[in-house]
Amino acid sequence: MNIDQMQFAHRFDGISGSAIREIFKLLAVPGMISFAGGNPAASALPDETCAELARELLLDKGKVLLQYGATEGYAPLRESLAPYLKERFSFDCKPEEILPVTGSTQAMDLLCKALIDPGDKVVVENPTFLGNMQAIRLYQALLVPVDSDENGIKVDELEEVFKKEHPKMLYIIPTFQNPTGRTLSLERRKKIAQLASQYGVVVAEDDPYRDLRYAGQELPSIKSFDTEGWVAFMGSFSKVISPGLRVGFLAANSTLLRKCTIGKQSSDVHTANLNQAIVDAYLRRGLLAPHVKEICLSYAQQMNTMLGLLAKCGGVARYTRPKGGLFIFAELNEGMNATELMKKCVEKGVAYVPGTHFYANGGHENTFRLNFSMSTIEQIKEGMEKLNQVFTENC
Amino acid sequence: MNIDQMQFAHRFDGISGSAIREIFKLLAVPGMISFAGGNPAASALPDETCAELARELLLDKGKVLLQYGATEGYAPLRESLAPYLKERFSFDCKPEEILPVTGSTQAMDLLCKALIDPGDKVVVENPTFLGNMQAIRLYQALLVPVDSDENGIKVDELEEVFKKEHPKMLYIIPTFQNPTGRTLSLERRKKIAQLASQYGVVVAEDDPYRDLRYAGQELPSIKSFDTEGWVAFMGSFSKVISPGLRVGFLAANSTLLRKCTIGKQSSDVHTANLNQAIVDAYLRRGLLAPHVKEICLSYAQQMNTMLGLLAKCGGVARYTRPKGGLFIFAELNEGMNATELMKKCVEKGVAYVPGTHFYANGGHENTFRLNFSMSTIEQIKEGMEKLNQVFTENC
Repeated sequence: MNIDQMQFAHRFDGISGSAIREIFKLLAVPGMISFAGGNPAASALPDETCAELARELLLDKGKVLLQYGATEGYAPLRESLAPYLKERFSFDCKPEEILPVTGSTQAMDLLCKALIDPGDKVVVENPTFLGNMQAIRLYQALLVPVDSDENGIKVDELEEVFKKEHPKMLYIIPTFQNPTGRTLSLERRKKIAQLASQYGVVVAEDDPYRDLRYAGQELPSIKSFDTEGWVAFMGSFSKVISPGLRVGFLAANSTLLRKCTIGKQSSDVHTANLNQAIVDAYLRRGLLAPHVKEICLSYAQQMNTMLGLLAKCGGVARYTRPKGGLFIFAELNEGMNATELMKKCVEKGVAYVPGTHFYANGGHENTFRLNFSMSTIEQIKEGMEKLNQVFTENC
Repeated sequence: MNIDQMQFAHRFDGISGSAIREIFKLLAVPGMISFAGGNPAASALPDETCAELARELLLDKGKVLLQYGATEGYAPLRESLAPYLKERFSFDCKPEEILPVTGSTQAMDLLCKALIDPGDKVVVENPTFLGNMQAIRLYQALLVPVDSDENGIKVDELEEVFKKEHPKMLYIIPTFQNPTGRTLSLERRKKIAQLASQYGVVVAEDDPYRDLRYAGQELPSIKSFDTEGWVAFMGSFSKVISPGLRVGFLAANSTLLRKCTIGKQSSDVHTANLNQAIVDAYLRRGLLAPHVKEICLSYAQQMNTMLGLLAKCGGVARYTRPKGGLFIFAELNEGMNATELMKKCVEKGVAYVPGTHFYANGGHENTFRLNFSMSTIEQIKEGMEKLNQVFTENC
């Protein structure tokens, strides 16, 4: 039979791969200033510390780390995650309620695997992280977008949707959201925990940016207000240690976590032990806090420089003013098209991500996302000037 | 809403988790001799080499390795895999036709993600590796078992099934199969490649044990006879370098591989770069071949000792005589029950895996799987004597 007759699964109908990851491939041009990614700065990646830790850990317990591990995770890491979650995210959680995963994308995948049948509804913020929208779509769920404002997702609309649509899950990034940089208010956090429990909706709380705070006060997680167990918390070390190590975690009630663990047996058996042990060493030896402090100093300057220049940028109607994270979200004047203008920008040597990709139903062609973490102050100045030129000429 | 009312996805109906991984938890008793696992020997895990490699690689290119990587894989590894596949598995393949994955279990998961809709049929050997049966079942496929003999799966029966059942996929372990240790004959390899193409069935060829050969001649892979692209080849470094690093690969035709790559974006974004770079260094620097040679010397002695004692073991009616791999599969006298006897064995301090778990439809209660790689010669002698006592008393 001709190979062209190979039949693929229906879950791929309409799925063409991450638009962002495709855009990244266009950027491998020398000298390109990229505001498109969401990567940590090279200077934020602790190569020397990780080199020494990896060697030490492998010499010390290589026979354990190189052997098969438990799907449930590397026990020392689960033990050091419990107090970390208490301290940083304000919720109590036993080590056995935490599942280390191969990056928090896997946590999203496992939650969908555990919960979603084709046709189930999943509420997402409008706009939200497109990678996880794809993960949800691959489970053939229907995405139900709910708009957000400067305080995060609109909870009144959310309650209406919970009431009318009976979704299985809400996917939400409460702190320094991707792509908007917005943070969900304290009141709304409480309200969402209460709604989840009232309507029986699992909340997938994704909080990878929380430690990257440059101003303002920390807020407790949605999960800290969860009394029943409807909130599943997904965390990541990609933004504060290294994305290349692929270590995140999922904290959830034990029945849900058990399903996710069984799902993980068939996904990758377990997360690589060495990678878990490196993260464990960061937590156990108090290496994380000073490292994060150092990163934040620099990211804050980068963000503030970009915000200052955005205020003077032609064609920009409005933009978010985050207190942390990696992203600023902006809107061009009505009628301007960020996808089309992106081509001109790339020709000039600067890139961003058109905002339309972050909306479940597309549209919003005049929006775009800017990242500042991967560019130096000089590059930010130069790149923003290029944006200013293109936008001014086309507004 | 009470948390007990949480509704899980139908794919978990009837799935209770890997029986083997549950058995392993019972074995954490000091002094237990375990013939149950499938792990490499501790002495086969190259802790010192990996420690030095990890340090060197992180110092040398830590800024790349700790950053996000491409879903398509670490480019140097793909480049070193292509000649490795040619040399070891006898098929031609470009770097872009190879996808590094987070252990070959992920390759199975991604193939199912790409191909399987609920109700699709997947042919498996009877018996076969239960971990991958679970992976397939989680995609709500129907397993169609086809018996095997000393030359592997029976190809006449296989053709009948291809003709009548129109399966989407065949999952097969051609070399030193798990659990039987059997190797598919050359003729059958050719025949399967031809049948795949004739009937339009994707062959998922899983070949993690090939390098662990203690006698006899190597055979080319099924994929080496594949002219159309219906054979997808899954490989692993778990048995020859380290399972804890979680690095395997999938080689397939480019359309299928593209679907798997998009699926992987949502599974874990990419396989950890450091782990890929360590495997790359093993291939690139010629470290793999001498390491495998050393492991095989010891495993061969262990296997031969076990085979010799199995010949004298009470209650054992027959058993396979592998030329490599990690497993021997045995059958007790009719009427004896390996699951029930396992409890007595564990009380005595020795464990195996009851064979019933490896059969898609269960049954075969008098079979069991033995692993020899994790036990010293002394432990094999002692453990086999314990088995002999229990079986003799109960036959």
